[in-house]
Amino acid sequence: MDSERIWTAAIVVIGDEILSGRTQDRNVAQIATWLNVQGIRLKEVRIVADDSAAIAEAVNILRARNDYLFTTGGIGPTHDDITVDAIAAALGVAVVVHPKARAVLEAYYADKGGITDARLRMARVPEGARLIENRMSGAPGMHIDNVFIMAGVPHITAQMLDALTGTLEGGAPLVSVTLGAWVAESEVADLLRIAERDHPGCAIGSYPFFREGKVGANFVVRSTSEDDVRACAVDLAKAIEATGLETVADGI
Amino acid sequence: MDSERIWTAAIVVIGDEILSGRTQDRNVAQIATWLNVQGIRLKEVRIVADDSAAIAEAVNILRARNDYLFTTGGIGPTHDDITVDAIAAALGVAVVVHPKARAVLEAYYADKGGITDARLRMARVPEGARLIENRMSGAPGMHIDNVFIMAGVPHITAQMLDALTGTLEGGAPLVSVTLGAWVAESEVADLLRIAERDHPGCAIGSYPFFREGKVGANFVVRSTSEDDVRACAVDLAKAIEATGLETVADGI
Repeated sequence: MDSERIWTAAIVVIGDEILSGRTQDRNVAQIATWLNVQGIRLKEVRIVADDSAAIAEAVNILRARNDYLFTTGGIGPTHDDITVDAIAAALGVAVVVHPKARAVLEAYYADKGGITDARLRMARVPEGARLIENRMSGAPGMHIDNVFIMAGVPHITAQMLDALTGTLEGGAPLVSVTLGAWVAESEVADLLRIAERDHPGCAIGSYPFFREGKVGANFVVRSTSEDDVRACAVDLAKAIEATGLETVADGI
Repeated sequence: MDSERIWTAAIVVIGDEILSGRTQDRNVAQIATWLNVQGIRLKEVRIVADDSAAIAEAVNILRARNDYLFTTGGIGPTHDDITVDAIAAALGVAVVVHPKARAVLEAYYADKGGITDARLRMARVPEGARLIENRMSGAPGMHIDNVFIMAGVPHITAQMLDALTGTLEGGAPLVSVTLGAWVAESEVADLLRIAERDHPGCAIGSYPFFREGKVGANFVVRSTSEDDVRACAVDLAKAIEATGLETVADGI
């Protein structure tokens, strides 16, 4: 495995409810955190409406320029669940009922009134797709080529990520150390810039906050090399402490 | 004013901290909710890294096909704050120090050690930009053409939205009614489809949840016409209740 290669992923969040402000998305943070552990970098995200053309545009652009593409939302049984059809159209394949998905749904609904046309919608997949198990609700996720089609409900997507853990090829996971200090980031901006310059493999992010009536900031040092991250964080901590401030590793 | 015209906006969220999963974005939901009240529809969102080319690509595409474009993040004093430079490059204008922003920052930092090069970074704007007031931290947002450059910290963006309230031209605000029921959405999928078909001005979203060990769903009826929304919601409630279920207006 080439340790220098960076594996990337993108997410397309599908949902009018996110764009209307009604629902706070939680899948981006959840999938991003999971991807880090797999050694895959989340590179870009698009949030699009329940609109076939918008979904297809985003899916086709992002799957072409990333190793993996995840979508969330729109795979339920109702009329506004159009993800499967939109992705099949984007990929130029038919929509078929997956026999195993049908069997899973029939078993799941056996004591809940049986299968109906609406419920059968959840067994429809782009032709050639394989299922991603979901022990929670019976409705599976699916993947086809490098496209992974996940649920909108974060708890269900968590189950699907669990089923995918360790199955995707990735590179070295990104590691990070967070330094916190009760300081306005503008006071240490030069120190951050110098530490990043002196440690080429590292990126430093600066995240200010206001808490307990005071100004503070967390400085996150990231790299695929744990040694580089540690060396950079130690240098930065020394530089900040030389100005008379205290720092807290792991952030404030 | 043409009440049929739909005004649209897009958001570009700029920030490695969102893509790494470290920080949960809150600006999309906040800006979306605010836009609804202004009669502007949030059409699409992109989350991009702290990378000039990625920012410029997203900004140029989205500002061209929407009435308004908002960006969040990357306008602080540190080396990773590259939004102003990236947007100026995207628009083909220079970066200049805005005299009023400089004066505001000088006043804000008068008793905090005075202005420094790092702090002066926050007075830099794309040439031709106007400031958006921010009473919280002294660092202003800015707008140029149809691009509105906001902070990453949600509390600061809230201040900037407050300063913009009522200043943007929009259409009729989107109104909605939410019906909740303790039912699997697959059981009422046909009723939702029929209600939407019978009320052409309305869109119905279906949002399942699992709570207290039970399955339920909220059905959100949306339209720019309050009368249409009400008529559609009443019909849908009747149809659901005819199956023996109860519904709760405003959702569960």
